[in-house]
Amino acid sequence: MDLKKYLAEKKRVIDGALEKYLPEVEGPARDLVRAMRYSLFAGGKRLRPILCIASAEAVGGRQEAVLPAACALEFIHTYSLIHDDLPAMDDDELRRGMPTSHKVFGEALALLAGDGLLTEAFRLLCSGDLLAHIPPESVVRVVELVAEAAGYKGMVGGQVADIQAEGKPADKETIDFIHSHKTAALITASVVAGAIMAGGDSGQIEALRTYGKGIGLAFQISDDLLDVEGDTEAMGKTAGSDERKGKATYPAVVGLKRSREIQNKLVREAVGALEAFDQRANPLREIAYYIVRRKK
Amino acid sequence: MDLKKYLAEKKRVIDGALEKYLPEVEGPARDLVRAMRYSLFAGGKRLRPILCIASAEAVGGRQEAVLPAACALEFIHTYSLIHDDLPAMDDDELRRGMPTSHKVFGEALALLAGDGLLTEAFRLLCSGDLLAHIPPESVVRVVELVAEAAGYKGMVGGQVADIQAEGKPADKETIDFIHSHKTAALITASVVAGAIMAGGDSGQIEALRTYGKGIGLAFQISDDLLDVEGDTEAMGKTAGSDERKGKATYPAVVGLKRSREIQNKLVREAVGALEAFDQRANPLREIAYYIVRRKK
Repeated sequence: MDLKKYLAEKKRVIDGALEKYLPEVEGPARDLVRAMRYSLFAGGKRLRPILCIASAEAVGGRQEAVLPAACALEFIHTYSLIHDDLPAMDDDELRRGMPTSHKVFGEALALLAGDGLLTEAFRLLCSGDLLAHIPPESVVRVVELVAEAAGYKGMVGGQVADIQAEGKPADKETIDFIHSHKTAALITASVVAGAIMAGGDSGQIEALRTYGKGIGLAFQISDDLLDVEGDTEAMGKTAGSDERKGKATYPAVVGLKRSREIQNKLVREAVGALEAFDQRANPLREIAYYIVRRKK
Repeated sequence: MDLKKYLAEKKRVIDGALEKYLPEVEGPARDLVRAMRYSLFAGGKRLRPILCIASAEAVGGRQEAVLPAACALEFIHTYSLIHDDLPAMDDDELRRGMPTSHKVFGEALALLAGDGLLTEAFRLLCSGDLLAHIPPESVVRVVELVAEAAGYKGMVGGQVADIQAEGKPADKETIDFIHSHKTAALITASVVAGAIMAGGDSGQIEALRTYGKGIGLAFQISDDLLDVEGDTEAMGKTAGSDERKGKATYPAVVGLKRSREIQNKLVREAVGALEAFDQRANPLREIAYYIVRRKK
């Protein structure tokens, strides 16, 4: 299959749906929605929504049916980036080659744009657009799953560990905790959510959970590696910033060579977990390999 | 009925449930959960969860059945206070007589504690504890309702309008928008959510929505009035701070006398909306009158 074409086509569909689910507004909420949209349309790869759709399709589901949930996952990812970039957090001025939210809209509006995206994600997950296709029993399972992955037991917990590890010598256990919570948790939930909504059986859901955990961690390791080896222009953010900030990263803890070995092993195991799936899981397999070779 | 006793008893039950739903943890999330709990147990009145329970009981529902949802509403209210107090927002050092979250835990942890509470609220709304009593069809309606009330079309939108109105001469339309979005939206959703979960019919739900809007706005007006006339010690926050910050308030726009008149009218209309309800709605009626006379 042509993965590049696949990813571009999915991104086009997702961008259209995001536009539908967060249109510009007039009136007192105009600036807030403008700030929410600025970060939402700042050139993301749409990895989480694509994984959600690809997972649904791998168990026989339809893209249209899970699209609102896929968009909700991108809302949550975008909120986390906005809050992560704030001066009180990573204090980043550049994201995907563009000024960060608080640089454009000020800290208060950036903070509230993040809050607005997170909250709207859960509204979208329980909106009529999703419930027209997915039974409420599955929707509540997805909300619980996604909220747990995004919350203090998942992504937010990972953010705290990330901040607390800054400037200290990190060990493998710490970096595994940070990466599996800060990044892999929401990626795993995206994959599992797609399978739940599409009516996958418990064996399929468990296999996809294993796949999600593997590629989620591999994805964060490639982020770490790109920060060391990557090109500032291609990435749209400044290379080497992890080291300057004293961030706990895989290369810093286990070295470049071992990081690549671990990453390759994770991807092999992720693809291995999909053994029982037919060719409809090929996009998931290709995405796993893509994660290792991506340049931005 | 003895409202004071009623409120104290409900608060006791809710505090017990909050303790159950957010216990202390060890490990990397320890400090985060500590920060979440610090604000959650900082002496709130539990107005939103009490309204949710009282509304459920007014249509024949049971307190135990809606308790997880009631707690989720308090999580959302608490998150909004933490973010509202941040330096980039209202920059408050004192809340309910205690140092605000960022004063105790630093800005990063305060921000993430808010994010964690908001996200956990939605997990709790779709948790097995609620679904053991409430059908998933009702749960998804409640999530959509609460998320809309808390998000950019509701509370977050009101926060933005509040900030943007600061230091400018406000008119009645602006102050009505701010108060109805920043405060009344989540209070209304709390009341309506209780009725939906308890299986209230559409007539009951609409009557309770009218009640919620009325007392929600009346509650924010009493907040404004207390800031002018109240006692710093009783309130646990500094009186007169709205004027110093140039906040848009009812007294500033329409004067003290007219503010009290509007407030009394709102409460009369709110209680009037409950005409068709029997004595099980007495707590809601009493809470409406209490909102006008409260001293903190």
